[in-house]
Order: sequence, then structure tokens, then C-alpha cells
Amino acid sequence: MGRTSDARERLLAAALSLFAEKSYSAVGIAEICARAGVQKGSFYYFFPSKEALALATIEDHWIRQKSDWASILHGEGSPLERLHRLFDATTQIQADALAGTGTVTGCLFGNLALEVGAISEPIRERLQGVFAEQVEMITSHLEQAVASGEIEPVDTVAAAKSIVAQLEGLILFAKLFNDPAQLDAMWASSLRLVGVTERVS
Amino acid sequence: MGRTSDARERLLAAALSLFAEKSYSAVGIAEICARAGVQKGSFYYFFPSKEALALATIEDHWIRQKSDWASILHGEGSPLERLHRLFDATTQIQADALAGTGTVTGCLFGNLALEVGAISEPIRERLQGVFAEQVEMITSHLEQAVASGEIEPVDTVAAAKSIVAQLEGLILFAKLFNDPAQLDAMWASSLRLVGVTERVS
Repeated sequence: MGRTSDARERLLAAALSLFAEKSYSAVGIAEICARAGVQKGSFYYFFPSKEALALATIEDHWIRQKSDWASILHGEGSPLERLHRLFDATTQIQADALAGTGTVTGCLFGNLALEVGAISEPIRERLQGVFAEQVEMITSHLEQAVASGEIEPVDTVAAAKSIVAQLEGLILFAKLFNDPAQLDAMWASSLRLVGVTERVS
Repeated sequence: MGRTSDARERLLAAALSLFAEKSYSAVGIAEICARAGVQKGSFYYFFPSKEALALATIEDHWIRQKSDWASILHGEGSPLERLHRLFDATTQIQADALAGTGTVTGCLFGNLALEVGAISEPIRERLQGVFAEQVEMITSHLEQAVASGEIEPVDTVAAAKSIVAQLEGLILFAKLFNDPAQLDAMWASSLRLVGVTERVS
């Protein structure tokens, strides 16, 4: 019972990896418990259902990702340089997953949106919130780029939404082709989406 | 037994709707047969497995969609006007699904890519082919737009890939928010992706 203290974290990690390797519907609680090394009885101590585990996994994953995004977007360099670094970090995460597991795991939120969004209303609502927060973060970042004169004034909300949509689309391709390099297009596309048609970077 | 002749078509239609309403993994052969009004024995006459049915569903759906795309892209108007009409038609399909079933069903190929791409190698390979064909169609269409002088010379393959990625990302949002209007951003984004920053249309 010495490992009980981190059983919840191990269940979240097991769910994150199994949802990516297979899918939400294809994975059962027994398999998640086996991967986590946690007894089924302990599972129900932490989570009433697989749906509740998925919601906690989304929450946990978004807290980490949001913190990573914030530290990059508030880091060194000009606003566009920081945005570029965010995409490079995203590509690196998929490259690390490929190197470690042989598989580009994609985006937990996009994976669950297309699969579970139609089944579970609580999951759908939480994912809507995550994507809205992503768009807000990119919007306020683009406003900085406009304020600094690095890009021309632009509809920052529309541009941010297009950037997040582009990111989800390219991560879908990265997962489908099992190739993180699909994300290399992200930077050039984003520059065009914010109205920069030529740039050496 | 009078309906046996169209049993295969009914199985394809049932699979198309059930994969969209729930997901591939969440739907079993028995449920697909019930929706189609086909006996389980007949199912195995047509398809050796659910995977085989999914492959046939992808094939059938892509043949129809490719034909729809071609007739719009080879229709009346300038190349950009026809591209705009393709996006309007895509939005309309999601709006019709919402009106008919209460649900934006999304894109079969995107749905399966994120869910099944990690599980089934034949499905993954077929979906790679579908997206490659979509990118080819948009690429050759953008080449027409360049040739006609409607847009400036541009890396048409990269732009086409960005447009298809953007479309998948926005369809993901349309499905997640159950709102076809998410796709309204498609036109303005695509213009930017091909280097047109201002246009009244």
C-alpha cells in the first residue's frame, strides 16, 4: 500500500497514454488499472466512472499545458519569436512521444473532442472551455504583437481561432501520418494568418 | 428478403451515421445491423469484420465527396469563387446534419483519423490516401487561381495542406460546439493562407 499515495496520479498518467494509444471507447477501467498498477477498488475510491477519470485527465493535462504555454509566451524575445517557440515546443512534444513510444500521440483534447464530444456532455463542455482558453491565450498574445508593431492590426480573435484550428488540423495529420514534421507548416501558416506574407525566420 | 439487394448500402449508411453519432469503438456490429435492418448473418456475407466495413464506408463516402468537390471546383465562376462555394457547401452539409439529427456530425475521415488511426493500420493508410487526394485537389485548384492571375504565385502544395488542415480544425470545432457557424471562418482564413489579405466577397 506504499504506492497508494500516488495512485491517483498513476491513474491519470495511464488514462492519458491509453486514450492516446487506443481511444476512450476502446479502453476499459480494468486496462487503465492494470497500466497504472492500481486495484480496481482503488479506482472507484478516486473516480466514480471512466467519464470522471477522463474529466480529471483533461483538467490535469490542461493545467500542465497551460503552464507550459504561459511560460513560453511570457518568456524572452519578441511576441512572434515566442509564438514560434510555442509551435516548436509542440512539435518537440510529438517528436518525443514518437521517440519514446513509437507513436505520435496527438492532442488529448482534439482526440477526445472528435470521439467523446458526441457521447458525453460534461466532456464536451470541458473541452469547449479548454479550446476557448487556448484561443484567449493566443488572442492576447497577438494583441501584444500588434501593440509592439511586429504585425499590422488584425482581427486578433479570428486570427487566434484560425491558428488554434490550424494547430489541431496539423496535429491530426501528425498523428495520422505518425510524423511530427507535419507540424513544420505551422509557423509559415500562422504568419500568413496574421497577415505577414514574407518573413525570413 | 426483398430488401437484401440494398443490404450492403444500408450497412454503409448505418455505419456512417453511427460512427459519427458515437464513435468507431463505441459501436458494435449488432448495433450497426439493427440500424440497417440487416441480419448479422448477412453482415458477414458482405464484410468479414467491423474494420472491413469501416474501410468500405471510407471508400464509399470519399467517392461521393470527391465527386461533389469536383463538380463544385470545376463549376461556374473564377477559381476563388469556386473554392468559396466548396466551403459554403461543406458548412451546409454540417448545417443539414444539425437540422436533421440535432448533431453536427463532423468529418468521417477526421473522426476516424484521431480515433482509429492509432488502432488499425489499413484504416490509417486509407485515410492518409484520402487526405493526400484532398490536398492534391486543392493544390491543382490553387494553381488555376495563380494561372488566372486571381492570386499571386504561392507555394500551392503548402497552401493547400494548410487549407485542408484548417478545414479539419474548424470541423472539429463545429462538432465540439455543435455549431456549423464555426466554419464561417474558413473563407477569410483561406484567403490569408494564399496571400490575399484584403478582399470583399
